[in-house]
Formats: sequence, C-alpha cells, structure tokens
Amino acid sequence: MKVDNQHVQQKVFDSAKKLLFTRGVKGWNTDMLAREAGLAKNTLYKIIGSKEQIVEAVAMAQVRENAESAASFLQTEIDWADKQKSLRAVRTALERFTANMSRFEPVVLPQIYLQYPGVEVKINALVKDLTLLAHDFFQQAKDNGFIRPEVDPEVVMDMVRAMVAHYIQQGADKSQFEDRVKKAFDYVLQGITA
Amino acid sequence: MKVDNQHVQQKVFDSAKKLLFTRGVKGWNTDMLAREAGLAKNTLYKIIGSKEQIVEAVAMAQVRENAESAASFLQTEIDWADKQKSLRAVRTALERFTANMSRFEPVVLPQIYLQYPGVEVKINALVKDLTLLAHDFFQQAKDNGFIRPEVDPEVVMDMVRAMVAHYIQQGADKSQFEDRVKKAFDYVLQGITA
Repeated sequence: MKVDNQHVQQKVFDSAKKLLFTRGVKGWNTDMLAREAGLAKNTLYKIIGSKEQIVEAVAMAQVRENAESAASFLQTEIDWADKQKSLRAVRTALERFTANMSRFEPVVLPQIYLQYPGVEVKINALVKDLTLLAHDFFQQAKDNGFIRPEVDPEVVMDMVRAMVAHYIQQGADKSQFEDRVKKAFDYVLQGITA
Repeated sequence: MKVDNQHVQQKVFDSAKKLLFTRGVKGWNTDMLAREAGLAKNTLYKIIGSKEQIVEAVAMAQVRENAESAASFLQTEIDWADKQKSLRAVRTALERFTANMSRFEPVVLPQIYLQYPGVEVKINALVKDLTLLAHDFFQQAKDNGFIRPEVDPEVVMDMVRAMVAHYIQQGADKSQFEDRVKKAFDYVLQGITA
C-alpha cells in the first residue's frame, strides 16, 4: 500500500475483506472495491498496487489472526499434573482453532490459492513458525507424560496439517469443515494421550 | 493395447514397469522402451497407443494389486470377540497395506500425476470401490464394539486418505513413507478403538 493514511487504508482493507467473504475471489473487481470503499479509482490505485496485493493482505491478516491465537495457547503454562484439566484445555484450544479456521480457510482460501498461487507460498511460510511452537508444545506434553512416550511429534503435526489440507481441498463448507476437523483432532488426541 | 499377443504385451508391460521404477516418468521415451522390450518401434506402436497409455496401464495395475490385497482383507471374517486377536489382524493388515503402497505410490505416482493428470482421475475412481468396502468394515467393527460407538467412519476414511495423500505430496521416500504412515495409522487406530 502506497498512501500513508491509516484511515483510508483500513477502509480499503475492510471493503476488500467484505467483498472476499460475500463474493469470493472472482465475484468483484477493483471498480467495485473503489465504490465499496467510497474512493475514486485513481485514489484506490495509489493505495493498492493490484487486486492480488489487497487479496494477499486480507488473506495474510486472516491467517495471522488465527495463527496468533493458536500461538498464544501453545505458549501458555499448562498444569500437566492435572490430567483432566490439561486434556480439557487442549481440547478447548483445538476447538477454538478449528472454529477460527472454519470462517475463512475452507471456503475463501482455496479460491485465493487457485487464482494467486503466490499467496499460498507466503501463507505456508507464515504458518511455519506455528509449526515450531506446536513442536515444542508436543515435546513438553510428552515430557510431562500427557502424550505416550513413543509418539512422534512430527507425525502428529503432519496429521493436523494433512487433515486441514484435506478438507480445504475437498471444498467442505464451514459447518462440515468444523465438524469433521473437530472429530479428526479428537481421534488423534485420544490416540496419542497416555 | 492393439496387438492381441499376450506374450509380447507382457514383455512391453514389464519393460515399461522397469523403466518407470528405475528412471521415473521422464527418464525414458518410447525408443528406449522398444529397445528394452526387444521390439522394433513400429511393432511397439502396434501394441501401445502412446507412452501415456502404457504408463497408465502400469500405474493402474500397480494400484489395483494393492487395492485387491486390501479389499481381500476387508472382506475376511474377523473374530471380533477376541479383542487382542482382532487388533493384531487389523494392525498387520494396515502394515501390509502401507508396505505395499510404499513401493510405488509415494515415489512414482506423483510424477505420473504431474505428467498425465488424466491418470489421477482414473486411479481415484479405482480406489473408490475400496472406500466402500472400508466403510462396511468400519461399520462392522463398530457394531462389534471394536471401535467406539461415537466414531464417524467417514472421518476415519478421510484421515487415512489425507495421510496417504499428504506423504505422497511431500515426496517422502519409500522408508519415510512407510515409517510415518505406519505411525499415523497406529495413532488413529488407538484413537478410535474401544
């Protein structure tokens, strides 16, 4: 974004987000975005370089929001000594993570990836940090006897990634995505806890 | 294949299979296939329509072999009353399934899909029948109290598919694939059994 005006930038961002959520990726163009944001097209182009750039900005912000919420859980102190309490905490966090994702990832993200493959690369890079945090978290859970000692954290991470990717590729809708990912996470959790 | 000569057809098939396993999809052409099979190129083209057709035939045969082995297990009588014995039977079958797949699926199949996307469609159709058998098997396992009553067989099938697809897409090598898929299946099994 080129023009250094917080308010106008925010307006463009919010308008693009609204269009993405209501019309998908292909159902709008920059003329409509200018109208939605109440800007002349000239002014809009001083703020965004292209449709791809603003779509990328919205997608990154959305995924970053979910990733940060997940990251903050992964870094909280868990009372591992209380098995029931820690199981509840992990289950609640997984449910929130799934619910957060279901608003954006399964429906809008696949369209974005199809249209702008470059965005997928950047989102994957963004999610990489989360993987490292999750890895530490699993190690902690293992060290504290929450997860069975022989469980391979790499494989568990792969399972989480694979399930999310599977339902995104399947084009599952919001409630299907939430329901199935929740069940899958639950089976994995039951399969790895001590 | 156009020429009705079992022996020559088999020779071409075996040669194509050897080339696929040793050189991947792109490391050979029909000249090399003719040489490998000891045929003139004219004769070869009477037998195969194109490189794609013979690659498809080998891929289908390979996947069908694994699918039939899995299907035959899914249709055996399991002694559900003996929990330990049935758990061992399922685990052994999953290990054999993974080992069978690891010879071909993770290394050669992604190359084939990339080069000839039509083959992926046909393989997916081939695997569909297996999904139906697996579905019946899970239902049986549930009815007999082997799997917890609230487990959703659809989601379990999705997990199996997602894990296999994940490691195929990752380009995991044979032993990585075998090791990780085995672990993932094991966690799922522990997560769903009663």
